[in-house]
Amino acid sequence: MTFTSEEIEYLSKQDLGRLATSQPNGMLQNSPVGFTCNIELGTIDIGGYNMAASQKYKNLTSNPTVAFVVDDIVSRSPWRVRCLEIRGVGEQVESGSDRTMLGPIIRVRPTRIISFGLADGDLELEPHQIKSSKRDLTA
Amino acid sequence: MTFTSEEIEYLSKQDLGRLATSQPNGMLQNSPVGFTCNIELGTIDIGGYNMAASQKYKNLTSNPTVAFVVDDIVSRSPWRVRCLEIRGVGEQVESGSDRTMLGPIIRVRPTRIISFGLADGDLELEPHQIKSSKRDLTA
Repeated sequence: MTFTSEEIEYLSKQDLGRLATSQPNGMLQNSPVGFTCNIELGTIDIGGYNMAASQKYKNLTSNPTVAFVVDDIVSRSPWRVRCLEIRGVGEQVESGSDRTMLGPIIRVRPTRIISFGLADGDLELEPHQIKSSKRDLTA
Repeated sequence: MTFTSEEIEYLSKQDLGRLATSQPNGMLQNSPVGFTCNIELGTIDIGGYNMAASQKYKNLTSNPTVAFVVDDIVSRSPWRVRCLEIRGVGEQVESGSDRTMLGPIIRVRPTRIISFGLADGDLELEPHQIKSSKRDLTA
């Protein structure tokens, strides 16, 4: 399993993620995207209107490196943010694997997953005491 | 003025942004961050606990290119997302310009600003009819 059960649960509660990609000239872009967690494949699948025409989709041709993140604010006082960041490789997929993903999609294959504030007990800690969880995945 | 009045208003309502940076080895990362819109300088100022020790801060040494984005979901049916993306150069600043930004911060100087769904009248359009607004800024 690529994702842990707590990561899958967190992803299922988030409606919007942000996908960082790199343009051919090296400029970065950061795009809000809808997504689904593809549990079977262990990927994040990103669809959207006119996806194949989007710059973020085209960027993958020259540089497939991506970073995807979801987050939420647990409390403002104290300031508590949780997040799950997925770094990896973005693939241009002509058609998705289910009926909700018919058109071209971006499929993110994780190579490194970093979470913050999602572990059991984190909410009982002071925000500055929370340690992030990081792991590398092999292809 | 770097930011329009509608951009400043939108930024003031958002508590969390995401900053994409590039690591020395080319891997991208995408980090949730608190921020302030520095109207006087026309920058986005990003503070945070132990900022100077963070990977995103260090990344700017080898590659100052960044992309910052804030967004929100206006409605789920139909699916309406607004966003403001700021691409540019991230500077390591030893100390901020006001009392809330004492420590090292990342200061984002915009070179390109892209907004979607923020213009007057956009909410009356079908989501697919909305056009993004893009402009380049000179240093």
